Amino acid sequence: MTKWVYTFAKGKAEGRADMKELLGGKGANLAEMSSLGIPVPAGFTMTTEVCTHFYDNDRTYPQDLEEQVLTALAEIEVHMDAKFGDAKAPLLVSVRSGARASMPGMMDTVLNLGLNDETVEGLAQQSGDTRFAYDSYRRFIQMYSDVVLGVDHYIFEELLEYYKDEKDYSLDTDLTGEDWKSLCDQYKEKVLEEMDEDFPQDPKVQLWGAVGAVFKSWMNARANTYRILHNIPAEWGTAVNIQAMVFGNMGEDCATGVCFTRNPSTGDKHFYGEYLINAQGEDVVAGIRTPQPLTIYEKEESGSKLPSMEEVMPKTFAELVTYRNKLEAHYKDMQDMEFTIQKDTLWMLQTRVGKRTTKAALKMAVDMCEEGLITKEEAVMRLDPHSLDQLLHPTLDPDAPRDVISRALPASPGAATGRIVFSAEDAEKWVKRKEEVILVRTETSPEDIGGMHVAEGILTTRGGMTSHAAVVARGMGTPCVSGAGDMRVDYKARTLTSFDGKVLAEGDVITLDGSNGEVILGTVPTIQPELSGDFAKLMHWADDIRELGVRTNAETPSDAEMARKLGAEGIGLCRTEHMFFEHARINYVREMILADDERKRREALGHILPFQRQDFEELFQIMEGLPLTIRLLDPPLHEFLPHSEHDMEEVAKIANMSVEGVKERAAELAEQNPMLGHRGCRLGITYPEIYEMQTRAIFEAACKVTKAGGKPVMPEIMIPLVAMNAELERLKVVVQNTAKEVCEAEGLEIDYMVGTMIELPRACLRAGEIAQAAEFFSFGTNDLTQTTYGLSRDDAGRFLRVYQEKGVINVDPFVSIDQDGVGELVQMGAERGRQTRPDIKLGICGEHGGDPASVAFCHKIGLSYVSCSPYRVPIARLAAAQAALGLDPASQD
Amino acid sequence: MTKWVYTFAKGKAEGRADMKELLGGKGANLAEMSSLGIPVPAGFTMTTEVCTHFYDNDRTYPQDLEEQVLTALAEIEVHMDAKFGDAKAPLLVSVRSGARASMPGMMDTVLNLGLNDETVEGLAQQSGDTRFAYDSYRRFIQMYSDVVLGVDHYIFEELLEYYKDEKDYSLDTDLTGEDWKSLCDQYKEKVLEEMDEDFPQDPKVQLWGAVGAVFKSWMNARANTYRILHNIPAEWGTAVNIQAMVFGNMGEDCATGVCFTRNPSTGDKHFYGEYLINAQGEDVVAGIRTPQPLTIYEKEESGSKLPSMEEVMPKTFAELVTYRNKLEAHYKDMQDMEFTIQKDTLWMLQTRVGKRTTKAALKMAVDMCEEGLITKEEAVMRLDPHSLDQLLHPTLDPDAPRDVISRALPASPGAATGRIVFSAEDAEKWVKRKEEVILVRTETSPEDIGGMHVAEGILTTRGGMTSHAAVVARGMGTPCVSGAGDMRVDYKARTLTSFDGKVLAEGDVITLDGSNGEVILGTVPTIQPELSGDFAKLMHWADDIRELGVRTNAETPSDAEMARKLGAEGIGLCRTEHMFFEHARINYVREMILADDERKRREALGHILPFQRQDFEELFQIMEGLPLTIRLLDPPLHEFLPHSEHDMEEVAKIANMSVEGVKERAAELAEQNPMLGHRGCRLGITYPEIYEMQTRAIFEAACKVTKAGGKPVMPEIMIPLVAMNAELERLKVVVQNTAKEVCEAEGLEIDYMVGTMIELPRACLRAGEIAQAAEFFSFGTNDLTQTTYGLSRDDAGRFLRVYQEKGVINVDPFVSIDQDGVGELVQMGAERGRQTRPDIKLGICGEHGGDPASVAFCHKIGLSYVSCSPYRVPIARLAAAQAALGLDPASQD
Repeated sequence: MTKWVYTFAKGKAEGRADMKELLGGKGANLAEMSSLGIPVPAGFTMTTEVCTHFYDNDRTYPQDLEEQVLTALAEIEVHMDAKFGDAKAPLLVSVRSGARASMPGMMDTVLNLGLNDETVEGLAQQSGDTRFAYDSYRRFIQMYSDVVLGVDHYIFEELLEYYKDEKDYSLDTDLTGEDWKSLCDQYKEKVLEEMDEDFPQDPKVQLWGAVGAVFKSWMNARANTYRILHNIPAEWGTAVNIQAMVFGNMGEDCATGVCFTRNPSTGDKHFYGEYLINAQGEDVVAGIRTPQPLTIYEKEESGSKLPSMEEVMPKTFAELVTYRNKLEAHYKDMQDMEFTIQKDTLWMLQTRVGKRTTKAALKMAVDMCEEGLITKEEAVMRLDPHSLDQLLHPTLDPDAPRDVISRALPASPGAATGRIVFSAEDAEKWVKRKEEVILVRTETSPEDIGGMHVAEGILTTRGGMTSHAAVVARGMGTPCVSGAGDMRVDYKARTLTSFDGKVLAEGDVITLDGSNGEVILGTVPTIQPELSGDFAKLMHWADDIRELGVRTNAETPSDAEMARKLGAEGIGLCRTEHMFFEHARINYVREMILADDERKRREALGHILPFQRQDFEELFQIMEGLPLTIRLLDPPLHEFLPHSEHDMEEVAKIANMSVEGVKERAAELAEQNPMLGHRGCRLGITYPEIYEMQTRAIFEAACKVTKAGGKPVMPEIMIPLVAMNAELERLKVVVQNTAKEVCEAEGLEIDYMVGTMIELPRACLRAGEIAQAAEFFSFGTNDLTQTTYGLSRDDAGRFLRVYQEKGVINVDPFVSIDQDGVGELVQMGAERGRQTRPDIKLGICGEHGGDPASVAFCHKIGLSYVSCSPYRVPIARLAAAQAALGLDPASQD
Repeated sequence: MTKWVYTFAKGKAEGRADMKELLGGKGANLAEMSSLGIPVPAGFTMTTEVCTHFYDNDRTYPQDLEEQVLTALAEIEVHMDAKFGDAKAPLLVSVRSGARASMPGMMDTVLNLGLNDETVEGLAQQSGDTRFAYDSYRRFIQMYSDVVLGVDHYIFEELLEYYKDEKDYSLDTDLTGEDWKSLCDQYKEKVLEEMDEDFPQDPKVQLWGAVGAVFKSWMNARANTYRILHNIPAEWGTAVNIQAMVFGNMGEDCATGVCFTRNPSTGDKHFYGEYLINAQGEDVVAGIRTPQPLTIYEKEESGSKLPSMEEVMPKTFAELVTYRNKLEAHYKDMQDMEFTIQKDTLWMLQTRVGKRTTKAALKMAVDMCEEGLITKEEAVMRLDPHSLDQLLHPTLDPDAPRDVISRALPASPGAATGRIVFSAEDAEKWVKRKEEVILVRTETSPEDIGGMHVAEGILTTRGGMTSHAAVVARGMGTPCVSGAGDMRVDYKARTLTSFDGKVLAEGDVITLDGSNGEVILGTVPTIQPELSGDFAKLMHWADDIRELGVRTNAETPSDAEMARKLGAEGIGLCRTEHMFFEHARINYVREMILADDERKRREALGHILPFQRQDFEELFQIMEGLPLTIRLLDPPLHEFLPHSEHDMEEVAKIANMSVEGVKERAAELAEQNPMLGHRGCRLGITYPEIYEMQTRAIFEAACKVTKAGGKPVMPEIMIPLVAMNAELERLKVVVQNTAKEVCEAEGLEIDYMVGTMIELPRACLRAGEIAQAAEFFSFGTNDLTQTTYGLSRDDAGRFLRVYQEKGVINVDPFVSIDQDGVGELVQMGAERGRQTRPDIKLGICGEHGGDPASVAFCHKIGLSYVSCSPYRVPIARLAAAQAALGLDPASQD
């Protein structure tokens, strides 16, 4: 018999923290807390296997589920001394989703379940608060009707507004118990009207309704989008947690709050959180009321005028601090906890490893390691390599003048500048036309996910540090300022008005400083990130652990310099064609292309030579003896030809041709599928003089730098797009002859290698043969992905999105290497190459070189190095260390 | 010690016929003839390994070669009772190339070597003919100077013309011995003048000079082109044959000739050939004098007035007939022989398997089998499948009126119509601009190869059935009429004048009937080929032997019908998009593409449905129960959009859009790399309604045909461009649901399969997974070649040619499957597919399906069938039989 239900209560639990796959994160941690003796309202978890069964069997449950649920429910009844549906001592429960990975706000929740016309009276009597009881009932009716029955919550809000108008009330708190009771009746009538059936009074019917709704919400549009954005497989399913209700809104001795064992924004080792007196948990998270600080320290830091919990409820606060210490020590990581205080009794409702900014993650990892809480290896595992991006990008120059129009909460760090838009939809539209936008909302909701994802930054006028906007923005690494209560949004007029009456319209530029909560008019100059301190420390630990080398893809001196600062151990891909586009030389390049014989082509190449030599000279100097992999010309020649009439004329003049002649030649060179056309080594075979010039430039530069007394240069000459060894062999001869000529003329010996980019399926298959000539392979996984999938990166946008939406693929193969297909070819190429030449140097230089899952794959198959863009170098260093520690993000939960 | 030299003489030989790789074809057969006791002038062969050594070692010879040559030369001296360089009894030799595969006229030859100022006198005394001796000497000086020293032969011809003018001679025969002697002096002086050194007098220096020239000629431009056209690897190298000279030009009791054991044009079992009295062998081949018939039968058949050898030299003729019989019985194949008669003594100079027209090859194979000379299996091996093409194409309608302007020799069969051009260069130019041309020359030479290759037909006014034009044309399968002596070519005026004074200019259209030698003004209607008789017999034998199935690629009823006539066992690829282009429906297709929502798209699809149903109905009827593999829509939608302004307007009207709207949509749909774009199953995933409509059409048609009482239909529905199983699985559901719906509505059960085209490297790699859903695979090797090589077929032209010229590749991978790369993927796909689904049906449907080497590969890896265009079906049938008999054209000599 499958066990579908796991109970927990009073220091005991059937589950454990390491059962997240089965119980979801929330359920596993509730069980763990209960086992640790921390007070958790009694409850049980319905496993993710129920969800899987539900979807595999036409949305039905396992036969024996009901019995197991009833048994578990009976246990809760015993623990809570209440009975489900009992008129006197009714048991109320919450029904919440809980997936393996946290998906905040994505799925549905039902609270106060078990209330009906009878039990509400019991609740009133028990709590001695009719108002509370009927307020709870109306909340339940609204929530249940919305989530389970599909009656829009606006309908109920309208009834409430109408009622308030009628009674001339302005605030919800003006309503009495009788008012709420009367509203409950209206609500139920409305449900009958909308649904043509009564609001369910049977708590068991309510329970199964809510459970079904939670399972169904696993596949709602919001959740699907979230999963795509976060690479969560749909097969995982969600668990459902059913737990006795406790109330933070039963009076002034009640409260509810959210707290973190350390500051999730800065990483400082200060207990940190927010709470609200006399409120339900959702009120804090939703950001509707501005919450109060948890500690005195926090209150002082933020300059808040609201009293802290430490002051208001010192005893309960002290208890909370013990749980904080216990949980952090137990989990060895910063915890994000939810709690409720019901009539001075503290209940822990949730604990989980807390989300944090990258800055905080870094600080915590280094601090915890230095505190002895975790090892260096564990510290290295604590950072998501992807997130390093946030530390590496520029921040606002603190010395630059700022026209600050608001100071609010620093909800997610980083600087962002963009044009104001007032809806997520507009954000997506504007970004499509290449505008950078700041999404401005009073508050955000899960429906805004799409727009939040594309915005440079997010500004809300309501909500705290744990509001939806703040949590989601931090997760995305998007700068966010929240709770800017001194500003006013007018959605209709599309304006944002500051406290001093400045009116900003849609499209106006503002800058957010997510690290201090400032909203600034216009743009602000930025400064480079600080790469020393904790960052350097952690990276150093990573370097000690990793086995893979990390190089960079760079052509310009500034990129090469930045990459070295970021820890690159050489250049893995220098794309010489990028150098061709610079203004001073592009016309010579075009002249070369337009040449109709070798003599003219050589003449034009002669003009390009000094420029190329200069390029390589600078790069050799910057690399100070580190290897420099130079890819000879790769793109089809027509890419260099001008498009505008003016440029055509200029080129025609230089090449001494008519404009028509230039156009004709351009048309002649145009290709159906340039990706598969006359490019790469095919250019070298047809016009060897181009590769000859490039080789000459490399070796002349190498000789010059060597003579100037620099460290020995390490050129690795890379022939692109090789499909067969015959191509490489021929071009190797061109390189060798030219190198020999230059070196003999200069009287020097330069060590160098000749290798190839492995970027075609055939090259992987024939790697054994190609390795006869190639001294190194660099896997060009961008093109290899294009050819293996038959998928043009330029054209895939229009259907890859549909593929992701429909669940045909989980991850864009251009972002993370397709290990099953492309990966098998890479592995085959590596193995066959090594068979021919055991010491062959193997690297990868596609975009994948900076993707952690791909880096782990490269580690697994034993490549020598990965090469990626400069800002991804730290990501690759960290990912390589994590891979060496056994992490495989592709198979990760 | 390596043996570099193999001798043969007087009934003995060190070599054998099966040593062609080492001795070349000529050398191996000379050895074999000698062993058979057939009189062959004594000689020896320098092996192809010498050639390989020559090119591998900077054009030098092996150290011990000279010694071996001198020893062999000494043996010849003994046999011929003459001495190399001896003033009294000089030994003269010929030096000829001899590669593994025959390359007629491609490489250099030197005759009469050994002559110098002394030995010429010896030759004069021995032959008693000073004129002959000095004529031979001047021929030698000219040939040697041209071939070895690089002095253009025109220089010598000029001297001769000048001499004749001076002496007032009109014919070469007017020159006396003294005249030739005096010319020899002039020739030698000219050489001194041109080369700044004396014409070599030392026969050994002459010998090594000639040997070097032959080896060098292996890499001359002509030979390189020939090798590319005939897929002969450059590594093979040539052998060199050095053989005692015998003379057919020593008087009226001398002759030289070429003969075939059967008629190489018709295949008839008649001894067939040509000879010239008092001539050197080259005179026959070069076509300078019109040769005489060999036999009385032949003389009567051709209506020749020249006496036959059978009449003139009955005794020698009878001896020749014995050798003919011996050699054909020995080699069990038609032989092409050269002979020389020196003073009534018959010498055989060469035998080889004779080239023949396809018609002749077919007749000979069937005849020899029925004569008991060879087995059915051997008969099936006798035809080059490629050549069947010639039998399958239309011939001139014998009943149509013909304006015959000349009747000449039927040198290579088949009908050709085209515009007259007068040079090979023009032929190539005109064909580039899509003209069909007939190349008209007085005679052709090896320099004309390029033009001969592209011409529809070849007409010469000189030369016989074994002239250069005739031999080459037959090899190429190009119709040719030769020796049209009653016509006159004026190269300067670019005209061809007929016997009755009709003047045809460049560009005028003529038709050649290569089967009867007629030259016809204008075009002549054609009739379909005869597929019964010998053809049917041989094909039937092939069918009995082969294991591979043969299907066809066809969409139209006429193609499908033709394919069945040609033996197709089903349709392996029905490309439904071809049906979309037909005029009645293309506008609906366009409307469908322009639709901006599913509803409109479905509406347009509704209009296309009846057309598609009709298409499939006809195909099912034609196939009479044979399987019909239907590929659902494959190309990117933008391919269907109009380009001309007029079409755009028409479409705009139908789709109720503005022309600008249509243009915008077209621009929106345009792709960078359409080959890798939004096509194939990607269309099915994004617009499932398209595949739904197609499936509906297929099953409605299937039901209709079934109800009409036809044979059970066998639809195999093929989803294109699958890269992962998730794609196929989803689309299989679309097909299955639609099929079920239609069948239920019609109350019928239709057996069908759903499978996929394996045409992406990833699909081959993931074939194991894809076979979970796929019931069959059809390898689409066109696209698989494009993606595996990263090579766009549309764009490859501009560099693939250079690749072939430079020897980077031997065979265009789009013509014959790249077994090492693409082939490995196909094999991997087949194996992995079978592992998942042992009974999976495996086929191939790229162009390669009709290429014999690729067919052999498909046989080797155990595919179930190949599918090719209708006219290639017999080729595939024959190739499959040959493969079953163990032939692997890719590894063939």
